[in-house]
Amino acid sequence: MKTALLTIGNELLSGVTVNTNASWLGRELLEQGFPVEETLTIGDNRPQILHALRYLWGAADIILTTGGLGPTSDDITMEVVAEFFGSDLVFHEPTFQHLKERLSSHKIEITEQHKQQSLVPQDAEIITNKAGTAPLIHYAREGKHLFCLPGIPYEMKHLVRHQIIPLLSEEQGRHSLTRLIRTSGVPESTIAREIAEIVDPLPAGAVAYLPHVFGVDIRLIADDTAENATRLQEITRAITNRLGKIVYTEQDESLAAVVGRELRQRTFTVSTAESCTGGLLADEFTNISGSSDYFMEGFITYGNQAKTDRLQVSGDLIERHGAVSEAVAEAMVRGALQAAGTDAALATTGIAGPTGGTDAKPVGLVYIGCGIRGRVQTKRFVFGQDRRLNKERAVWAALNMLRLALQDDEHTRL
Amino acid sequence: MKTALLTIGNELLSGVTVNTNASWLGRELLEQGFPVEETLTIGDNRPQILHALRYLWGAADIILTTGGLGPTSDDITMEVVAEFFGSDLVFHEPTFQHLKERLSSHKIEITEQHKQQSLVPQDAEIITNKAGTAPLIHYAREGKHLFCLPGIPYEMKHLVRHQIIPLLSEEQGRHSLTRLIRTSGVPESTIAREIAEIVDPLPAGAVAYLPHVFGVDIRLIADDTAENATRLQEITRAITNRLGKIVYTEQDESLAAVVGRELRQRTFTVSTAESCTGGLLADEFTNISGSSDYFMEGFITYGNQAKTDRLQVSGDLIERHGAVSEAVAEAMVRGALQAAGTDAALATTGIAGPTGGTDAKPVGLVYIGCGIRGRVQTKRFVFGQDRRLNKERAVWAALNMLRLALQDDEHTRL
Repeated sequence: MKTALLTIGNELLSGVTVNTNASWLGRELLEQGFPVEETLTIGDNRPQILHALRYLWGAADIILTTGGLGPTSDDITMEVVAEFFGSDLVFHEPTFQHLKERLSSHKIEITEQHKQQSLVPQDAEIITNKAGTAPLIHYAREGKHLFCLPGIPYEMKHLVRHQIIPLLSEEQGRHSLTRLIRTSGVPESTIAREIAEIVDPLPAGAVAYLPHVFGVDIRLIADDTAENATRLQEITRAITNRLGKIVYTEQDESLAAVVGRELRQRTFTVSTAESCTGGLLADEFTNISGSSDYFMEGFITYGNQAKTDRLQVSGDLIERHGAVSEAVAEAMVRGALQAAGTDAALATTGIAGPTGGTDAKPVGLVYIGCGIRGRVQTKRFVFGQDRRLNKERAVWAALNMLRLALQDDEHTRL
Repeated sequence: MKTALLTIGNELLSGVTVNTNASWLGRELLEQGFPVEETLTIGDNRPQILHALRYLWGAADIILTTGGLGPTSDDITMEVVAEFFGSDLVFHEPTFQHLKERLSSHKIEITEQHKQQSLVPQDAEIITNKAGTAPLIHYAREGKHLFCLPGIPYEMKHLVRHQIIPLLSEEQGRHSLTRLIRTSGVPESTIAREIAEIVDPLPAGAVAYLPHVFGVDIRLIADDTAENATRLQEITRAITNRLGKIVYTEQDESLAAVVGRELRQRTFTVSTAESCTGGLLADEFTNISGSSDYFMEGFITYGNQAKTDRLQVSGDLIERHGAVSEAVAEAMVRGALQAAGTDAALATTGIAGPTGGTDAKPVGLVYIGCGIRGRVQTKRFVFGQDRRLNKERAVWAALNMLRLALQDDEHTRL
């Protein structure tokens, strides 16, 4: 069984929208045992959609399309799919009723365009979309499946989880085993060399290196058998033993989630004092549900006056060393620990760029301070030229410093 | 001339990596007059890559591949492309020298794997990658072009901007005209109805609606002629007149950039007081280069104590109304204006979810406060169930409130 995606939308080709639907579907379907082998992205264009349907209907067994089901004139997926299967479009009363209910609850007026949205292929299965207005269209022919999903992520995800996966799982019952090992701080080539003797005996495609801004993920995949389950566990253990502390998790979770768990296990609280990262560090902490249990507060001291007023960093210290300095990073951490009264604190000060650099203090220079109950360490980094990447890398480096500090600190080790 | 992308990587199919390369390439190539008509995503798999190359070489004139050029065993793009064109792989001394220089400057040891990375197709053009190690491979045959790019975004972008676009532009000299109109607060179907009589006479494909979490973008595209330039300008003006204040920009810029410009024009400063958005609002402000001119500081008062200590929100007020309330949102704004001494301030308090909701105060409930020099307004929103989306929507709503307040306020109108 081969699974393929057809993501439809001019906005995907023109880059106005990032194709996060494809990545979400890829991950979700892989974990349910239906790995996506091919994704085709095309515009809202009749000949292109027809051509792609012909190609994929020949090449795959399960096809999911996204996009082009909305109410505007460029939404043509439904009519082209009907044309492909030789189906007539007919007015579907349950779809219209559902649309009317949802729109009236959102106080949106019903128009002729909305009636258009209730035209569906006569001989397809029409599944009501409880999370939105456009229904899920399902063709099952020649032992193959085609599903047409709306492009709105929330609606799409709901239909996949509650309709498509149960339907396919019941029919197939096949699953893959996957393991994930997330590392930080070491390049892909070094990791590949380090673990070569462990992974070289594995079959092709069983191991993948996935480099991010924040580190390298190692993903292992095998068919779901009892033997493979034991083997994957052994290999995972061998890799994590070899790589040591650079492995921060074996779960599908962020570094902020790992740090949050470490804090929670110690019933520690944390605060942040951010200059160059401008709130992104606190944002990462607070993306984790339940983070209010340990994340108490954040200070975004962008200007020098704020560093003095909020964190008691003396104007004299800033004058002597500059706002981007080891001394200021340390003073910011101490100020946050003091003002917020937390067990731990992180501070960032740097030159995010692209302007503001000098020879002595180039764009990308960031000092990070990490403190646990009065013990403060600082570290100097030089990242790159890109403002956003510099913020992201500084946030990652700060979280990683706190992760290692919590694990290493003899006073706080579990 | 038809342009297509072939993005290669198991991590793209499995969803571990979001295909931001495809969206960046789509936008960049469109703006340079080479709109992408099709994007194919496949795994690091020889038969798949060969099959895709055969398909795209038949269907397109300009093909860009990304990924699979790294040093690990799953990086096979180069050898499969060579096989497709019947080329031998040969050791390329300049590539190896460049690799050695870059690695030694990053203090990475040279290994046998790195020598492998210096094998290139004998009869392709090999272009040194000044931003990285893997070279750009260029085949020009039968009036068509194939370029193989590394998957690392920074390296890929550098090669596209400095090598591929100049090469193609010199050969072709074709350009598109595009206009962008970004709106907020009104659904796609309403916008489509409002501007139907303006855009209906345009040729198919000339107008696209691009819905985001934050609003709907309208994009107009036409071939680059003097007549079209005048026409596009007239249509853009007609649309913006019809839609009025919901249009926040006609540039490719974020709402935070628009608000930043409005603040700068008035030499106003701003501060933020965030609860449920947890730093994301300040992060948006500080993503804009130069924002330190107007963004003074942010308070992330996640716990109630922080609201009292930092913003003088009385414990009694929180007790009476709850932390998620209009009264607290207003008090947070007044506290930020006072403590930071800024001209403007924004505050957010809400229930980001997915837990913590009640019947009276459901997940997604957010109060936003917006203050300009003592004049404070608040607004109540009910977003959805998704924690991250609730944060994003609240940030957008806050920025939009400040945008409108700055434009409407008779004391601050320019």
